[in-house]
Amino acid sequence: MFDLEFLIVSQPTAETPSPFRSASERAADRERKREAVLLAAVKAFNQHGFHAASLDEVATSLGVSKPTIYHYLGNKDQVLLECVTRGLEQLRAAARRNAKGPGSGRDRLVAFLRHYAEIIMDDFGRCVIRTAEEALSPDSAAKFRTLKGEVDKAMRDLIEQGVADGSIVAPDVRLTAFTLAGALNWLARWHQPDGEISAGEIARDMVQILMRGVDPRP
Amino acid sequence: MFDLEFLIVSQPTAETPSPFRSASERAADRERKREAVLLAAVKAFNQHGFHAASLDEVATSLGVSKPTIYHYLGNKDQVLLECVTRGLEQLRAAARRNAKGPGSGRDRLVAFLRHYAEIIMDDFGRCVIRTAEEALSPDSAAKFRTLKGEVDKAMRDLIEQGVADGSIVAPDVRLTAFTLAGALNWLARWHQPDGEISAGEIARDMVQILMRGVDPRP
Repeated sequence: MFDLEFLIVSQPTAETPSPFRSASERAADRERKREAVLLAAVKAFNQHGFHAASLDEVATSLGVSKPTIYHYLGNKDQVLLECVTRGLEQLRAAARRNAKGPGSGRDRLVAFLRHYAEIIMDDFGRCVIRTAEEALSPDSAAKFRTLKGEVDKAMRDLIEQGVADGSIVAPDVRLTAFTLAGALNWLARWHQPDGEISAGEIARDMVQILMRGVDPRP
Repeated sequence: MFDLEFLIVSQPTAETPSPFRSASERAADRERKREAVLLAAVKAFNQHGFHAASLDEVATSLGVSKPTIYHYLGNKDQVLLECVTRGLEQLRAAARRNAKGPGSGRDRLVAFLRHYAEIIMDDFGRCVIRTAEEALSPDSAAKFRTLKGEVDKAMRDLIEQGVADGSIVAPDVRLTAFTLAGALNWLARWHQPDGEISAGEIARDMVQILMRGVDPRP
């Protein structure tokens, strides 16, 4: 397909706005469309499960054709990989941000766990937990596993910070990390996004229960 | 197929053992075969995931034909329902047993959580957690959901026993139940059956961390 807009260096002025979009406008438009497709896809995966979810339905819900989905995101395996990557990147970003936060190791761990819980209750985080590695192609599954390993490592590092400054107690850091992460991950299976209690309140209360498990005894 | 054995009332004596099996022997043999098929199937589901697992491979691993699998357990959906039902019945039995145990509410909850964790690390319990409702037919999914609801209720009842006698503190019983169950359920995703630490030790240590979250403060 020959794209005329691509050949024109549009220089709109205040007086005579160009009817053609600038390169940056086109990029932003493409990005908005890609995001809309990705969000519709992750919601379909979370609602129906990866195998039962259909990209046809995703396309219909957006009023586009299935090739449009392929154009923006690739095949179903690539769409799922993009969804879980997005969720895992949110978790990694939360870990990075909180690892440098103020206060004790315990304070930083609490802040991270609350963010972690809120991400798990949101679309992409939910998809990370609801996706079994077997659902992905071997290559995608390997990437998924690597990213998950990095998030697990970030969780252990934050626990170790708390152990190091004496603000928490965790004789077995690995088991403690799996205990904390497991309780929060399970939110993806039982939490209803339209429930009465807000995600922030659930995160706060669940993290409070969990943190008592690692608080130093008086 | 005409089964000759079925027409004979075999009455073996000590002196001249009958070459034909008795009705109870045939029933026991059938039960043993059914168990072998079920165990091979649950291991395949846990290893490859339900969608990728093939009943052909299960049949081959047992040296039988696929119709033999259907004969003992039905179609793939029925096999999966039987696997998760078995796991959920183990969890319900553990709840029933421990609800009547000695000691305080806390003691009974600890005993139940340890059993719960060990079941989740075993084949059928693992399958309960690794199975998303969407994988099952609507009818089977409804049965699965009902049984899971009963296990959730049993967990809440045990927590309430501990709150009632003051041996634990849980301002929000439902959230506490999801926190405890979630941490233990996640074992089905990360625990390696052939790991260095025994399932019993992992169960003990994880339950210890979790119980500190509900212990009364001095």
